[in-house]
Amino acid sequence: MDDEKYFKNLTNRERAIFEGGISMGALYHQFVGTPINLDTCDSLEKAIEESILLQPAIIDVDVKLDKSMIKQACGSAGYTSLEGNMLNIEITTKVEDIAVVTCISYNEELQYPLMYIKE
Amino acid sequence: MDDEKYFKNLTNRERAIFEGGISMGALYHQFVGTPINLDTCDSLEKAIEESILLQPAIIDVDVKLDKSMIKQACGSAGYTSLEGNMLNIEITTKVEDIAVVTCISYNEELQYPLMYIKE
Amino acid sequence: MDDEKYFKNLTNRERAIFEGGISMGALYHQFVGTPINLDTCDSLEKAIEESILLQPAIIDVDVKLDKSMIKQACGSAGYTSLEGNMLNIEITTKVEDIAVVTCISYNEELQYPLMYIKE
Amino acid sequence: MDDEKYFKNLTNRERAIFEGGISMGALYHQFVGTPINLDTCDSLEKAIEESILLQPAIIDVDVKLDKSMIKQACGSAGYTSLEGNMLNIEITTKVEDIAVVTCISYNEELQYPLMYIKE
Repeated sequence: MDDEKYFKNLTNRERAIFEGGISMGALYHQFVGTPINLDTCDSLEKAIEESILLQPAIIDVDVKLDKSMIKQACGSAGYTSLEGNMLNIEITTKVEDIAVVTCISYNEELQYPLMYIKE
Repeated sequence: MDDEKYFKNLTNRERAIFEGGISMGALYHQFVGTPINLDTCDSLEKAIEESILLQPAIIDVDVKLDKSMIKQACGSAGYTSLEGNMLNIEITTKVEDIAVVTCISYNEELQYPLMYIKE
Repeated sequence: MDDEKYFKNLTNRERAIFEGGISMGALYHQFVGTPINLDTCDSLEKAIEESILLQPAIIDVDVKLDKSMIKQACGSAGYTSLEGNMLNIEITTKVEDIAVVTCISYNEELQYPLMYIKE
Repeated sequence: MDDEKYFKNLTNRERAIFEGGISMGALYHQFVGTPINLDTCDSLEKAIEESILLQPAIIDVDVKLDKSMIKQACGSAGYTSLEGNMLNIEITTKVEDIAVVTCISYNEELQYPLMYIKE
């Protein structure tokens, strides 16, 4: 990356965490609101994965939208808007030899979608 | 559609124009900003098409992102953010027997992406 | 407007309906997902109104976010994401002497936020 | 915060960096695309600041949109769409006694808007 010198104040792990956070915040606010139903999950999952893979330090993106929530939310209109609660996503960032997995999933206890770093 | 009674004050053509406008405004503001390069155009085009096809009265969506603009905008980062200028889209709406084609494309004269109804 | 010639195939009323649809679709997909609680409704309502007023043919925008829905949705996190259900908005478009009011509000019968033209 | 136990695998500094990254990615992809001109910068800056302040660990948000870029981009339409290049933003996150400042600004050398941690 040409931008390396701008990150000298971060350890490799800190940078991996930073880039994971950016990309998770990015995809949440880019794609929440997209019209969706069960038939279109595949194409949206793929578009999210491919677009987020372009961002710095990302080496893997795995997107699983919650089909049962989506099915339930599709009322008389036959489709719904993608919500944060429906996101199950893991983004792997790697900076030199340090890899970090940033996740979002709906947290039953907190009752909202939590973004966190996997152990 | 269950919502028919709410549109009694519109002719079929007016409703087709209304729904075309809604969906064009929707997709512009939903997807502008998405990270993109030449390798990810296909998956984003498909996701836009499938998601917008879900909306009321839409019977066809054809999305062609401007590859030469995208290529040019991809600088040292290897990708760019999708901009309105890059959109070439036709949405066909149909209400009973009346079909209308709503378009967006970059207008050289006006120097911005124009949304309009095709003759 | 410099773009008048591109709309010769529309009546003034059709164009007013088209621009109302575009702007309603636009604001829905631009702002749904924004972090919000009761304290920030005012600034978000104002930003939506001012930004949408810039779009073609718009002469008035009135945004009222549903405070009771927002309050209820703010759980342990103290805030929520703006959803389509929370929007009560009227956009007035005018083309020459013809004005049209485009609305969105949550429709109890349909159980989703309906976009429609006011009588 | 009730969610503290989910972040035991991060130092305070790592969590402050993570939350700063999330919020910077979030606001970029939430607000890029918003219609804007010089008259509406104030209301959009305020709405961005107030909404992002709601997110976890954020104690300060300072948004300065680039007025000269915005002015230049407003062509015959009298307004433009907010682009990443126009963002000058600092987000301060604090976790216990550790504060971190996450920034975005257009980087002349890289020719794109860079997100980074301030020294």
